[in-house]
Amino acid sequence: MADGSRTTEARRDAVFGRWVVFSPARSRRPTDLKSHNPTTNPNPGLGGADAPKPSCPFCAGRESECAPEIFRVPPAAAPEASPWRIRVIENLYPALRRDMEPPAPQDGGAKEEEESVPGELVVRGFGFHDVVIETPRHDVRLWDLDAEGVRDVLLAYAARVRQLEEHPAVKYVQVFKNHGASAGASMAHSHSQMLGTPFVPPSITTRLNCMKEVFEKLGNCSLCEIKSKETLISDTPNFSAIVPFAASYPFEIWIIPRQHISYFHEIDQDKALDLGSLLKTMLQKLCKQLNDPPFNFMIHSAPFGLSSSCLPYAHWFLQIVPQLSVVGGFEIGSGCYINPVFPEDAAKILRELDCST
Amino acid sequence: MADGSRTTEARRDAVFGRWVVFSPARSRRPTDLKSHNPTTNPNPGLGGADAPKPSCPFCAGRESECAPEIFRVPPAAAPEASPWRIRVIENLYPALRRDMEPPAPQDGGAKEEEESVPGELVVRGFGFHDVVIETPRHDVRLWDLDAEGVRDVLLAYAARVRQLEEHPAVKYVQVFKNHGASAGASMAHSHSQMLGTPFVPPSITTRLNCMKEVFEKLGNCSLCEIKSKETLISDTPNFSAIVPFAASYPFEIWIIPRQHISYFHEIDQDKALDLGSLLKTMLQKLCKQLNDPPFNFMIHSAPFGLSSSCLPYAHWFLQIVPQLSVVGGFEIGSGCYINPVFPEDAAKILRELDCST
Repeated sequence: MADGSRTTEARRDAVFGRWVVFSPARSRRPTDLKSHNPTTNPNPGLGGADAPKPSCPFCAGRESECAPEIFRVPPAAAPEASPWRIRVIENLYPALRRDMEPPAPQDGGAKEEEESVPGELVVRGFGFHDVVIETPRHDVRLWDLDAEGVRDVLLAYAARVRQLEEHPAVKYVQVFKNHGASAGASMAHSHSQMLGTPFVPPSITTRLNCMKEVFEKLGNCSLCEIKSKETLISDTPNFSAIVPFAASYPFEIWIIPRQHISYFHEIDQDKALDLGSLLKTMLQKLCKQLNDPPFNFMIHSAPFGLSSSCLPYAHWFLQIVPQLSVVGGFEIGSGCYINPVFPEDAAKILRELDCST
Repeated sequence: MADGSRTTEARRDAVFGRWVVFSPARSRRPTDLKSHNPTTNPNPGLGGADAPKPSCPFCAGRESECAPEIFRVPPAAAPEASPWRIRVIENLYPALRRDMEPPAPQDGGAKEEEESVPGELVVRGFGFHDVVIETPRHDVRLWDLDAEGVRDVLLAYAARVRQLEEHPAVKYVQVFKNHGASAGASMAHSHSQMLGTPFVPPSITTRLNCMKEVFEKLGNCSLCEIKSKETLISDTPNFSAIVPFAASYPFEIWIIPRQHISYFHEIDQDKALDLGSLLKTMLQKLCKQLNDPPFNFMIHSAPFGLSSSCLPYAHWFLQIVPQLSVVGGFEIGSGCYINPVFPEDAAKILRELDCST
């Protein structure tokens, strides 16, 4: 077994500065790790009936039950009547509200509206919370689409992020996907979300500070420096898929542009196709290896208007996190994660897994 | 309704520096929020039979099936034969291993053993992972004990932390409790855990940096500054139980020493009784209000050997987190949480809830 020779160790990564304890003794063999909670969501594969699920407002034909549409793909002058492959809509239950007055743009982040204890801040809950419906069909998962279909979803993300960038009060857009109820998905129909926030979220600040520190020591970007063959799953002309050196979660995957690029939303058609193809393959591999697990993916980009001195260490990437175990008090309290699977073992298993059949 | 007048807002706290979005529209009324996943673990109350559960190694009479004992309460010269109320034992599946060679003590944290990319660190997985069995009885929960019983559990934590402090390679001890499977508990029998780590975990560093910043602005400790009556649930001569200003989780509770004290493990008998009584009441309230939810609690203390210049802003506290919802891609990606219940509303509900009957 790949893990036979491994002993417990702790690693700190060069991107988030997080400590992770790798503890192989707490698990069975890495290949035995499966989701106990397969999403079985929706019908696997494309063989199912084309009929919408009666209660699902994301299905074709039920557009009127959703919050307002922002755009659709392909675009349409009279949207109501035209067929679509992707719809970007407002979230019916938004966490942040586009109808609130935004903080003043000159605040460069949060406006300190009240201060009961110094360090405590309150800002109005202005922001944007959008949903990307990835397919009109209830029985299709993101990785059931062909590479061109996944490309178009990625291009829809990028197009919407570019729109939000125009708003002076939006500082960051977190693009993410929750798949499966235990990964936070409240709708089974395949979709992703994005939240445009009036502040730079704390993980983004922490990540940039950590990458800055490495850059100052090394003169290079931490993600550009990753060259390990042991943790590589697959690469394409423009992207590498790896298991990160200090993966917080078993079988966590990062898809990283091979070229140093700070902003996801600058992606072009060709690179989006390349990424779409690699993302599809990685999701297929996770589904096959881990028994259709719940998962999240997140796009880690740079805050809008980052100063040019920060660009050399800001490098966007996409993180995929299968949800195989529960986070407990140690993780919540310390910010450290315990991972039973060494990244080198996870990468080997995923690299060698054949999804072509 | 308490929340009728509230609109969405984002708050950043003065202890962790975390942003939390309060979004009441995403939930029903705060009083309707209940666990869908009650732990029903073990038999509620003290009425059950005294018989151990056949398969549970934490029950009285099955001590030989556990990893080695460190100490028991009351102490015994010949432990095998004596009755006990609390046992502190080694974890049979430790995340960190006491049998590995520790890093050299002069490293003041992590020893940089390998460096593939600057900023990446690896240390051997040395450390201590202990379990505190809070009662010999399978059917008793921590808050079923009387205040003296909870006091003794807290004193057992403190005694074990003091032992671990003697080890030069242990930098921090994270004390925590997972209650319920979906909060990470793998054993139903009431227990807590502690991990002594050879590095200072990232959340502790972040917390101290944030509290330092406030201290430098204000000349006072962020936790000493909390005086809001609106978020107070209950107080005793030595402790206050509050819902924090920027609670990440609905009905999150902090129990804070009213006096400025940096280290939990310096607690004495009287204060431990006071804390035991308040902790018992808070757990009873959560159980009653939220339908016996899974929860975690964590003790946030200072790293060992903190320099005296840092002590003025290091203030220990105990955080209780009911697990009512699932964390998704937004939280994982951004480090921001979305909480549907305003702290002032949660505090009012918990304050007014009568658990005496």
